Amino acid sequence: MTALSSWDLMAGPAGTRPVLSGRPRNAKVLILGAGISGLALGYELSRLGYDFHVLEARDRVGGLVWTVHGGTTHTEIGGEHQQCTWDEGLWLNAGAWRIPYTHTGVLNYCKELGVPLEIFVNEADASYFYREGADAGSLANTRVRLGEVKADIVGQVNELLVKAIDQHSLDLPLTAEDQERLVGFLVAQGYLDRKDRRYRAFADRGPGDPYQLSALLKAGFGDRLRSISPRDGITTAPMFHPVGGMEQIPKAFARAIGPSRITFNAEVHSVRQDDHAATVAYRDTKTGRTRTLTADYVVVCLPLSIVAGLDCQLSAEMMAAVRATTYSNSAKAGLGMKRRFWEEDDQIFGGHLYSNLPIGEFSYPSTGYFSRKGVLLGFYLHSGPAVTLMDRPIGERVEHVLTHSSKVHPQMRREFESAYCVWWRKVEYSRGGFANAAPLARRAQLSKFENRLLIGSAATAPHSEPDWQEGAIAAAWQALTSLHEHAMRS
Amino acid sequence: MTALSSWDLMAGPAGTRPVLSGRPRNAKVLILGAGISGLALGYELSRLGYDFHVLEARDRVGGLVWTVHGGTTHTEIGGEHQQCTWDEGLWLNAGAWRIPYTHTGVLNYCKELGVPLEIFVNEADASYFYREGADAGSLANTRVRLGEVKADIVGQVNELLVKAIDQHSLDLPLTAEDQERLVGFLVAQGYLDRKDRRYRAFADRGPGDPYQLSALLKAGFGDRLRSISPRDGITTAPMFHPVGGMEQIPKAFARAIGPSRITFNAEVHSVRQDDHAATVAYRDTKTGRTRTLTADYVVVCLPLSIVAGLDCQLSAEMMAAVRATTYSNSAKAGLGMKRRFWEEDDQIFGGHLYSNLPIGEFSYPSTGYFSRKGVLLGFYLHSGPAVTLMDRPIGERVEHVLTHSSKVHPQMRREFESAYCVWWRKVEYSRGGFANAAPLARRAQLSKFENRLLIGSAATAPHSEPDWQEGAIAAAWQALTSLHEHAMRS
Repeated sequence: MTALSSWDLMAGPAGTRPVLSGRPRNAKVLILGAGISGLALGYELSRLGYDFHVLEARDRVGGLVWTVHGGTTHTEIGGEHQQCTWDEGLWLNAGAWRIPYTHTGVLNYCKELGVPLEIFVNEADASYFYREGADAGSLANTRVRLGEVKADIVGQVNELLVKAIDQHSLDLPLTAEDQERLVGFLVAQGYLDRKDRRYRAFADRGPGDPYQLSALLKAGFGDRLRSISPRDGITTAPMFHPVGGMEQIPKAFARAIGPSRITFNAEVHSVRQDDHAATVAYRDTKTGRTRTLTADYVVVCLPLSIVAGLDCQLSAEMMAAVRATTYSNSAKAGLGMKRRFWEEDDQIFGGHLYSNLPIGEFSYPSTGYFSRKGVLLGFYLHSGPAVTLMDRPIGERVEHVLTHSSKVHPQMRREFESAYCVWWRKVEYSRGGFANAAPLARRAQLSKFENRLLIGSAATAPHSEPDWQEGAIAAAWQALTSLHEHAMRS
Repeated sequence: MTALSSWDLMAGPAGTRPVLSGRPRNAKVLILGAGISGLALGYELSRLGYDFHVLEARDRVGGLVWTVHGGTTHTEIGGEHQQCTWDEGLWLNAGAWRIPYTHTGVLNYCKELGVPLEIFVNEADASYFYREGADAGSLANTRVRLGEVKADIVGQVNELLVKAIDQHSLDLPLTAEDQERLVGFLVAQGYLDRKDRRYRAFADRGPGDPYQLSALLKAGFGDRLRSISPRDGITTAPMFHPVGGMEQIPKAFARAIGPSRITFNAEVHSVRQDDHAATVAYRDTKTGRTRTLTADYVVVCLPLSIVAGLDCQLSAEMMAAVRATTYSNSAKAGLGMKRRFWEEDDQIFGGHLYSNLPIGEFSYPSTGYFSRKGVLLGFYLHSGPAVTLMDRPIGERVEHVLTHSSKVHPQMRREFESAYCVWWRKVEYSRGGFANAAPLARRAQLSKFENRLLIGSAATAPHSEPDWQEGAIAAAWQALTSLHEHAMRS
């Protein structure tokens, strides 16, 4: 146990890590669910010296933080069984997959628990834009690299501006000397010809003539360009991910908590409470036997989509808030490839394809550069085909991904080895992806203590959105503070 | 031994990897020096089935590719002894430290030899500019982040341009619809206010008011901004470096060649040749005994600054070319820090400080993010203080680095643990840094076969500059082709 540093106390999106003290007399705690919120809560309780135990329905920790690799299996609800056959060292983060540098809640735990992180490349200039349909104008169905878009837009805009400055047609609030510096900057930044200050093809841009400014804007390719990256959300830079997959985070929590604190294959069926205790009944899915455990407090860190189906002694208001909470239809397909052709043939190292193809986010691995094989994220969506393909055979979903991604990468089918599909709505014990952000009033309701029961799922996150690990940690911290206050009063 | 892929055959800066066949009858080869050129040559000879051996004066492979870590020691020529005391897992690449993605020669070997690579962050928006002196204008002695520079320059330039478009003072070759798209792009890219289209402070930029465009340009901070990164040189992106330090590359070569092929502590004194054989005399620095080895060919892969002092049976023209080749005064200081304050306090993850302080390149580690300690590159120069501090005590050099870097990072002295200095001019068996690029005529002279002797040092590199590992590989490939042709004819 280490002292909290200034880093811990820095408020990130998840707020500030609670600084608590004291150990309550009667405070045996049961945590339901070993996802990030349950694990973070358990870890903090262990630091405070609580007597606690975690029940987890699966045979692994992490919940939505799930790294698929060779040997991974699951059977879709009412559907197919899959077994992953990728070589050792290859993996796909089927759930959480990237951490903005501002998410100091989860990053601090990585630091404290010794989880090595590497850069998640969230933008690569070599990656392609690709737009189908007449709306995209003359660049429809054309691969254009992000770097070409940047070079051609900035180059042509700077050429326009330099011309205007030269013709004194601008009302510039600058001295002559400053104007000269501005022109020098525009020429250098935009790779304009030093003599005639025009923009033309240049070696660092790669082969081919520049695309017309109007065509690039019409195609919408300029929409991604910003002077700087935002501090939060999916376009933040830098981002990080654990070496070896996101599962390293829940695994590190579990190691720190200790194996005796977690019971796996424990499918919770009911949560009851009275003046003396709370009682949880669960089925051991290995033996089929039902068991009960009692505790002073139960913190429910399960997806609310699961809680909605439990026999749970919560108020009608609470259960209404639970049932009103919706979860995403997130779906991912990982494609194991024989050869990292995107690196070898296209010089793409991490980053994403920017397309309007019905495959959503298509991403290149930010790990294992220059190794032989690799896993592409071939499909990541929360709607559209994530829903329409949900009940189609796995083979058909993979075919969909290969068909569309081949429009950009003709090498796809030749290099394809095997796929693994995770449609979260059909994953048992999840039955959905991340919680959709709820109105604050509902979150306030969900975070209320009801006698001996408290909800600590990511959906209750007060500061942070529930669709990031940071949200799960915010929820855990809120539950921790609430629980500790309650227990210290009792 | 694997077949060459399309990747191997792609011409990078080092040219194309030679595709050779056949095994000469009499071709015992001695390679002098186990730096990258000697190792790459040895590796290729082993693939061709040659009988060869490598002599190396040090007790390690790699030459200029040297990773300093806890336990590393060296004694400067005529100077001080150092022993590195950093914790396990901390290191500094004292020589080669970054590989542009276009350097397919060295990257292909990493792939073939299984050397894991990670991203070398060559530009981080959170890093600071800092300029001393009146030339920098009103921003002298002020820390300004690269991201602030980008946001403020692009924002103010876009505001100017939008105003001009609105006032129809530009002669735009665009339709009204295209103009509207252009304005939309400029507003979004520059984070302009959506209503009045003015540039103001905004949340993603961080706290504080924008800096004046004229002040930023005057300070020269705009000089680093380019629409895209170049494909070669020190501002390329992306770049890579091996996980665990650059030494992983020479170590992997050495493993592939096999330990029996390399003799360490073998300080070469003379290279003689006649019609029958070449003979190398060397001193075993452990025993002090002199030994000789004979071979059909000797390939000299030592720095030419070392060759200049050998009794080497080469022509007067060749020795003149050898002696005319100069080497850099490269010097680096690594600072072991107790706390990664640049990450915790400043949110800087990799990248460099852009300053005119007399410490040259000051860089943040692109590895071990969010771990506890870290090693800063506190000083990297080839001239100025790299020369004037050369004969000063180590402590004085470290004091110089701490004094100047503290102007930007006041935490330096408090968090400093211990330093390690590598002034290459004073490193035995190197006596200089990288070879300075020579005129092509001299390189042509250096690459000539002289009976049984051939030079394969990086300084002879034909396509690529000798100041990168890629140059050493280009030199090795050139020597390989030349040697094999020669041997097959004999």
